[in-house]
Amino acid sequence: MDGCLHCVFTWQKACSIFHTQGWKHLRRSFSTEKVIHKDHSLPNPSWSKDLRLLFDQFMKKCEDGSWKHLPSSECKVPQRIHSFKTYFLDSKPVKEDQLSQARPFTRSYEVGQGFEYAMFYNEDEKRTVCLFQGGPYLEGPPGFLHGGALATMIDTTLGVCTISCMGLFMTANLNINFKSPIPLCSVVVISSQLDKVEGRKVFVSCNVRSVDEKTLHSDATGLFIKLDPEKSLT
Amino acid sequence: MDGCLHCVFTWQKACSIFHTQGWKHLRRSFSTEKVIHKDHSLPNPSWSKDLRLLFDQFMKKCEDGSWKHLPSSECKVPQRIHSFKTYFLDSKPVKEDQLSQARPFTRSYEVGQGFEYAMFYNEDEKRTVCLFQGGPYLEGPPGFLHGGALATMIDTTLGVCTISCMGLFMTANLNINFKSPIPLCSVVVISSQLDKVEGRKVFVSCNVRSVDEKTLHSDATGLFIKLDPEKSLT
Repeated sequence: MDGCLHCVFTWQKACSIFHTQGWKHLRRSFSTEKVIHKDHSLPNPSWSKDLRLLFDQFMKKCEDGSWKHLPSSECKVPQRIHSFKTYFLDSKPVKEDQLSQARPFTRSYEVGQGFEYAMFYNEDEKRTVCLFQGGPYLEGPPGFLHGGALATMIDTTLGVCTISCMGLFMTANLNINFKSPIPLCSVVVISSQLDKVEGRKVFVSCNVRSVDEKTLHSDATGLFIKLDPEKSLT
Repeated sequence: MDGCLHCVFTWQKACSIFHTQGWKHLRRSFSTEKVIHKDHSLPNPSWSKDLRLLFDQFMKKCEDGSWKHLPSSECKVPQRIHSFKTYFLDSKPVKEDQLSQARPFTRSYEVGQGFEYAMFYNEDEKRTVCLFQGGPYLEGPPGFLHGGALATMIDTTLGVCTISCMGLFMTANLNINFKSPIPLCSVVVISSQLDKVEGRKVFVSCNVRSVDEKTLHSDATGLFIKLDPEKSLT
């Protein structure tokens, strides 16, 4: 397969599969024996009042089963999970000592410094919402969030939306409009939805708004390509 | 001004202005009195052989003046540099204790863990090249770089290309095709160029290739909007 894929499949997303599609699917892919599972998407002392209030509101929505909270974990499965890389392509191998230090990008900072977020999924509406607070280590322009940090969370949210609805996918295209800068350490709501499916292609979109919904910070579209466990991607 | 801007203007980019357009411009924007300036784009022990070789090749190209090495610094200018935020918009103010912890996103990791890169600029050709090694804390799919980490470096490189050519700009749109996953800790070359200028809009593009140039990992376009120091952006 030519010209296809990138990085939706993070640990964070893998973990969402644990909870939306069960362990069986991931066990099959990873041949894992033991998983250390800690949920990083629960409130911690770095969360602002805005983030806590929004989290509580969405947890309330989960009570009738219409929304589900998607846990976010590092899922530290040593060594063998990395056999996943053979899934991808005949790329230059990564040294084991480097892999042993690997951390999922969106959970690689200490609490409060980087990406603080929680995700919720509505199966009927094929929607995923990410409540995101960008910490002080994600600065772009002085006092504002870096565009790459927002792109990271947009990629992650669209990826989770796709995976939650359709299974394992990788990003093929991201098209992001940056409308208004996001003040550092503030909270935004990334609302994504599945728009269309064409064969192995899934089209998703999202917008990024302030907590009071008055400011549209960004909108974006994503194209994702389904991973086929029986096929190499090259 | 409506629907326009985002986060190209990082410290890293600010520092490139110091060296391409001189201090005067930035002094005017920041009203800074003292700058601590350490260049993070020089070889360090975490750099692979590939990155060192490429760096040496580009430094060689700098000898006849056709290319320039763009230093990358945190430029820790305490307090008053953050008055830059008034440049942007009537956004919710960021608390001073949070701002005091702020770090530029692409230089927020310890040496070797995150974004290791060096940039070079060719004024005649309006091109900027970024040599980028993504560390183990930037993992997306197991063993591979997160798409958001690549988007971050694409945003940064296109931004530097624009700023180096044209002055202060902010990202309005990024459109990224992910063609082939990048193995974690490997080196890629991001080659960007200025394509077109229309009033305050600048159109740039780039591709991301492996060191041996055989693999096209990604291509992207960017739209940047010029900042006018005399005008608010809202």
